[in-house]
Amino acid sequence: MGGSTFGKILSVTTWGESHGPAIGCVVEGVPAGIDLCEEDFVYYMDLRKPSRSTDTPRKESDTVKIMSGVFEGKTTGTPVSLMIVNENTHSQDYSNIKDVYRPGHADYTYDAKYGFRDYRGGGRSSGRETAMRVAAGVIARKILDTVGVIISSEYSPVPEIPELDSMGGTVKVVAGNVPAGLGEPVFSKLDAELSKAFMSVGAVKAVEFGLGTKVSEMLGSENNDTFINVDGKISTVNNNCGGILGGISDGDDIVIKAYIKPVPSILKEQRTVDKDGNETTLTIKGRHDKYLPPRIAPVLEAMTALTLADALLMNMTSRIENIIKVYKK
Amino acid sequence: MGGSTFGKILSVTTWGESHGPAIGCVVEGVPAGIDLCEEDFVYYMDLRKPSRSTDTPRKESDTVKIMSGVFEGKTTGTPVSLMIVNENTHSQDYSNIKDVYRPGHADYTYDAKYGFRDYRGGGRSSGRETAMRVAAGVIARKILDTVGVIISSEYSPVPEIPELDSMGGTVKVVAGNVPAGLGEPVFSKLDAELSKAFMSVGAVKAVEFGLGTKVSEMLGSENNDTFINVDGKISTVNNNCGGILGGISDGDDIVIKAYIKPVPSILKEQRTVDKDGNETTLTIKGRHDKYLPPRIAPVLEAMTALTLADALLMNMTSRIENIIKVYKK
Amino acid sequence: MGGSTFGKILSVTTWGESHGPAIGCVVEGVPAGIDLCEEDFVYYMDLRKPSRSTDTPRKESDTVKIMSGVFEGKTTGTPVSLMIVNENTHSQDYSNIKDVYRPGHADYTYDAKYGFRDYRGGGRSSGRETAMRVAAGVIARKILDTVGVIISSEYSPVPEIPELDSMGGTVKVVAGNVPAGLGEPVFSKLDAELSKAFMSVGAVKAVEFGLGTKVSEMLGSENNDTFINVDGKISTVNNNCGGILGGISDGDDIVIKAYIKPVPSILKEQRTVDKDGNETTLTIKGRHDKYLPPRIAPVLEAMTALTLADALLMNMTSRIENIIKVYKK
Amino acid sequence: MGGSTFGKILSVTTWGESHGPAIGCVVEGVPAGIDLCEEDFVYYMDLRKPSRSTDTPRKESDTVKIMSGVFEGKTTGTPVSLMIVNENTHSQDYSNIKDVYRPGHADYTYDAKYGFRDYRGGGRSSGRETAMRVAAGVIARKILDTVGVIISSEYSPVPEIPELDSMGGTVKVVAGNVPAGLGEPVFSKLDAELSKAFMSVGAVKAVEFGLGTKVSEMLGSENNDTFINVDGKISTVNNNCGGILGGISDGDDIVIKAYIKPVPSILKEQRTVDKDGNETTLTIKGRHDKYLPPRIAPVLEAMTALTLADALLMNMTSRIENIIKVYKK
Repeated sequence: MGGSTFGKILSVTTWGESHGPAIGCVVEGVPAGIDLCEEDFVYYMDLRKPSRSTDTPRKESDTVKIMSGVFEGKTTGTPVSLMIVNENTHSQDYSNIKDVYRPGHADYTYDAKYGFRDYRGGGRSSGRETAMRVAAGVIARKILDTVGVIISSEYSPVPEIPELDSMGGTVKVVAGNVPAGLGEPVFSKLDAELSKAFMSVGAVKAVEFGLGTKVSEMLGSENNDTFINVDGKISTVNNNCGGILGGISDGDDIVIKAYIKPVPSILKEQRTVDKDGNETTLTIKGRHDKYLPPRIAPVLEAMTALTLADALLMNMTSRIENIIKVYKK
Repeated sequence: MGGSTFGKILSVTTWGESHGPAIGCVVEGVPAGIDLCEEDFVYYMDLRKPSRSTDTPRKESDTVKIMSGVFEGKTTGTPVSLMIVNENTHSQDYSNIKDVYRPGHADYTYDAKYGFRDYRGGGRSSGRETAMRVAAGVIARKILDTVGVIISSEYSPVPEIPELDSMGGTVKVVAGNVPAGLGEPVFSKLDAELSKAFMSVGAVKAVEFGLGTKVSEMLGSENNDTFINVDGKISTVNNNCGGILGGISDGDDIVIKAYIKPVPSILKEQRTVDKDGNETTLTIKGRHDKYLPPRIAPVLEAMTALTLADALLMNMTSRIENIIKVYKK
Repeated sequence: MGGSTFGKILSVTTWGESHGPAIGCVVEGVPAGIDLCEEDFVYYMDLRKPSRSTDTPRKESDTVKIMSGVFEGKTTGTPVSLMIVNENTHSQDYSNIKDVYRPGHADYTYDAKYGFRDYRGGGRSSGRETAMRVAAGVIARKILDTVGVIISSEYSPVPEIPELDSMGGTVKVVAGNVPAGLGEPVFSKLDAELSKAFMSVGAVKAVEFGLGTKVSEMLGSENNDTFINVDGKISTVNNNCGGILGGISDGDDIVIKAYIKPVPSILKEQRTVDKDGNETTLTIKGRHDKYLPPRIAPVLEAMTALTLADALLMNMTSRIENIIKVYKK
Repeated sequence: MGGSTFGKILSVTTWGESHGPAIGCVVEGVPAGIDLCEEDFVYYMDLRKPSRSTDTPRKESDTVKIMSGVFEGKTTGTPVSLMIVNENTHSQDYSNIKDVYRPGHADYTYDAKYGFRDYRGGGRSSGRETAMRVAAGVIARKILDTVGVIISSEYSPVPEIPELDSMGGTVKVVAGNVPAGLGEPVFSKLDAELSKAFMSVGAVKAVEFGLGTKVSEMLGSENNDTFINVDGKISTVNNNCGGILGGISDGDDIVIKAYIKPVPSILKEQRTVDKDGNETTLTIKGRHDKYLPPRIAPVLEAMTALTLADALLMNMTSRIENIIKVYKK
C-alpha cells in the first residue's frame, strides 16, 4: 500500500535514494510475450538527461539493467526488475543542508513525517527517482503499441533566466489513437488517475484537461463538444474536453497540461530555519537545473503511458463477451 | 479494484444509479468508538441540495439511513453502510436521450465501454452519486476532528447566465490545522491523491495547489517559501506551495482550487449524433442546474476530508515509536 | 483495505450485522452484459437455509434485492448492490451474553480489538454474513458459466449428535472444467487464494488440496502426478495434486477439503469469564444448528466461485496476444 | 495487483528467477527508525540453507545487500530494497527439461498460462524465490519485536528415504506473545491471511490451526475452549483453537501446521509428456533436496512474521483513541 507503487493490474514499485548504491523498480503485471531488451530503454533515458541549455551537475550513463522477467528477449509474465547503478555518489559536503531546511524542498516535511531523512542529494525525494518512471514507461508503451496509442509532448520554450535564479514553465502531453472506453467510473475516472499520475511528479502544481482552467469562464453552449460523424466514426468538433467524457476516453486525443514550478535549488542566499527552528540563511552550492520542463516532459509521458496501459488492461474485463474472446479455443 | 472505491485504510465504495431504488455506500476501515447518528448527516446533505439561485428539478429529502456498523450510537469498527432511498424516480420520458448522445455527458463513452447504459437520468454517471461522497465525508470529518482539522470552501460568485444556457466557475477548498507529515512519498503524494479526489468529481477540469498555474511564470526566488519560526513552530511566510512540500503536508493551510465546467445540460437545441452515428439535433427537457460551484463545494470538501482522513490513518505507521505508543499497556 | 472486501478485479464488499436492519454487499468489477435478476438468487439462498435435520431458530425468506448495477435484465458494468432485509430481529433477551464471553465465539476477541461489540445475535461475527457470500457467488458463477466451469460439493454425513451438544464434519468442493492457467505465481497462487477464501468462513479450521495431509507421509514417486495424453489433452493419471501445480490450475478438477469445527453454541452449561475477567458459567438459550457442513457447503462453493471468477478475469491479461483479441476491430 | 506482492500496509514484492543475475524484493511500509544492517540477515538466511542430511547442489553465500531505505543504520520509512546476487548460474544442460514437463512441477502450468517459460532451474517457480521471503521476514520480525512477539517452529524428524526418492513431512509454527485483537473480520481473518501465506509456499498442500483436522470428529463440548482468568489475564484452558477466535487473535499462542509434499524432483525415471503432448520418459539429473521440512520451516516462520507484522500495523487504526495516542503532542 506504500506510496512507491503505482497502478493496479500493471503496477510499478520504485525504490532507491539519490546517493544510494542504485535505484530500481519492479514492474508487475506485464503480459508475457513482449519483446524487451536493455537497448529499448536508451532512447527514453536519454530524453530525460540534462539538456544543453539547462545544466545539471550529474553526468551518469543511466544504463538500465534488466534483472528478471525476461527470457530469450521476451517478457515471461513474471515481475520485471529494472536497476540503474548510481555512478555519481562520490562523497560530497552536505554539512550546510544536513540540519537546515532548503526552501521549496521536502527536507522539512520528511523530518516531520519520519523523524529524520537521508539528506544526501535529496535522498528519496530527489528527482532522481523519476528515472525509474521513465524506464517503467518504456514497458507501458510497448503494451500500448499493440493498439496503436502514440504519446507525445511539448514544453514551453526555454526563457531568459536571471543569474543565480530558476524559472517555471509548462508541459503539454497528448495521447493519440486511444481506444474509446478506457477509465473506470466514479473514483478511478481516467482523468482522475492521470491527475494523480502527473501531480505525483515533483514540481507539478496544477493539472488540466482540454480547455482546463478556461472552462470556468465559459458558457455551456460554448464548452459543450458537438458530436459529429467523421467517416463513420463518432468524434467531436473541437475536443474541448481533452478526450475524456465522464471519466472515460472518447477516442479523441487526450490532452493534459501540467504547470511546473521553478527549481527550488537556486544559488542566491535564502532565509530559512534549521531543524531546531532557529532562523538562519542558506546558500545552496553546486550546479542545478534552472528550468525543468524539458526534463519533466519525458517523465510525464511515461506517467501517461503507465496510466493508459493500466486502463487498457483493466478495461479488458468490462464486457462479458471479452471473456469469450480470450478463452475460446 | 473497481472504480467505485476510494481510499486505502479508510475506504468508501459507492453504488447506485440516479433512477434506481436507492443509492448507497459502504465505508470500511472506520475506527471503533466514533459517535455517529443519522442526524449527523443532515447539515452536510442540505449543503449539497439545490440552492435558491440555481434551480434543479429534483426535490428529495436525501435522508441518510445507517444500515450497519453503528451500535448504541458509536461506530463498532465494522463496515458502515449508508443508504438514501431515491424518491424522485417517477416514470419520465427518456425517448429523446435513449438513443442520442447528449453533448458534454458520458452517454457516448459509457456505450463505448459497456455496450449499453442505464440512460434514466444519467444512470451511474449522474451527479447524484456525489450525495454518497458527502455522506461518507461526514464520517471522515469525525476522524479528522480528533486532531482538529477544519475544512472550508468558497466558490466564485453566481454570475449572470444567459437564458437557456449555463456557466462555469471555481471552488477553493482550504484545510486548516492539518498535522505536518501526511502523505506518502513518490506516487501517493498528498497532492497527487487530492488531485485524483477532485478530478474524480464530474465537471472538474483543472486542479491546482497554492499559487497553482501561476508558478509557471515565476522565478524560483519568488516562488520558494521562506521558512520562519512563528512562536516556536516552523512555518512559511507566504504558503505559496499550498501547504504541501514534496507531497507531504507541512502543517500550513492546504489550499486547493478546482475549475468547474458549465453544466452540459442546456435547454438550447444542440447538434449531436445518435448511437448509430447519424447526425441529429437534441433539445434537453426539464429544469437543470445552471451553475454548479455552490453544489460542488460540499462534494469537494467531502473528498478533501476522505483523502486527509485516510492519510492521517496511514501516517500512523510511519514511525516505529508509534507502534509502542499504541500497544504499550 | 478493510477485511470486508474480497477479490481484486471482481470484488465483493459485505456489510451488516445479524440483528441490524439489513445485510448486503456491493459487487464491483462485474462485466457488463450478464443476464441477472432477483430470481437467480433463490436457488442458492435456499441451499444455505437450515436443513431438515439440523434445526436453527431463524426462519427468514432471505430475499435478495438488486439495488443497482442491473438495467433491463443485464449487468451494466457498474457496482451491483445486493441487500437482504433482516426479518427476524425482534427484541430478544441478550442479558446473559452481553457481558459474558461465549466459548468458541468471537465475543472476547471483538472486545479485545474494538473495545466493545454489537452483541445481538453475534453482530458482525454471526454466520449470517455468509448469506451475502452466497449471493455474490451467484454472480461469480454466471461469469464462470461463460467458460463452462462447474462447482459442486459434498459433505460428511449427518452423524448422531448427543443431546445438548454439536458435532464437527467436513466439506469437499470440486471445481470442474477449469481452464488451465488460472492463478498468479508466488503469493497469489490459486491454492493460496482458495485457502484464504475457505479459512475466512467461520468454523473452518483446516484446508487441504488433493491428497492434502496425506502427502506428508508419502514418497515422491507415489505422490508425483504422471502426465498423460488423454485424447489430445494433457492430463494426469491420479490428480493427486488437486488440479493445481505451482499455484496455477492444470485443467483437471480442483479438489478442496475443509474441516469444520462443531458449532460452539451448545445448550450445555459451560464455564467461562465475563468482560471483567471474573470466572462464571453460561447457559446458551434458543435453538441452534448442531451440524454445520450442510449449511457451509454452499458458502464454500460460493467462495470457490468468487476466487475462480476473479482468477479468470485476472488471467485475461497474462499474454500480450489477449490484448489484441479483445481490442481488434 | 500482481501475484508477487504480499501484505497491505507492510508489503513485500519479490522478483527474480533461479538462474537470472539476481533475486530481490522491495519491502514497502517499513516504519522509520528500525535498526537494520546487512548482518541482520545472516542468521536467518543460514537457517534456510541446505542441511547436512538433505543435500542440494546449490552452494551459495546468499548474502543480502541493502540497496535502499536505510540511512546511518536505521530504516528511513522509504522502500527497503534487498538483493542477493545469484552465484550458481553457470551454464548447465537443460535440454532434457526444456520441452518436457517434470511431474509435480509448474512447468506445464506456466506454459499453459504464459505460452512459454524460463526453464533454467525452474525459473520463477523455483524454491529459490523463498530466499527473499526469509529476508523480508527479518524486517517483519524487527517490527514484531517492539511488542515482544516470538516465532518458532519445529518439523517432523528426518525419515529414512529410499534411494532415488524423496519424502513428505510437516512443519508446525508457533507465534507467542501476540497481542489480542489482530486480524480483520470477515475476509481478512488472521487465520485466512495466514493460510494464504502458508499455502503460497510451494509444496504446502494442507494448513490447519490448533486442533485442525481433528475438530471434524469432535463434539462442541470437547472442542470449545473454556475461558479462564490466569493472573488477571483472560486465557483458555487448552487453546484448541490455536490462538484465533472469529479470525482475531486471542492473545494465546498461534499454532499453525503445514503438510509438505515430497520433493517432486526425484532421480528415478518417470513417465510424462512433452510440450506437444507426446508421452515420454524423463530422468532428472543433478542432486536435489530429498526432504523439505527443515528448509521450509524458516520460510513459514518468515511468512508468519510478515502476516503478523502487517496485522499489527493494520490494527493500529481499529480504535479512535489510538489516533489520539499517536498524534497528541
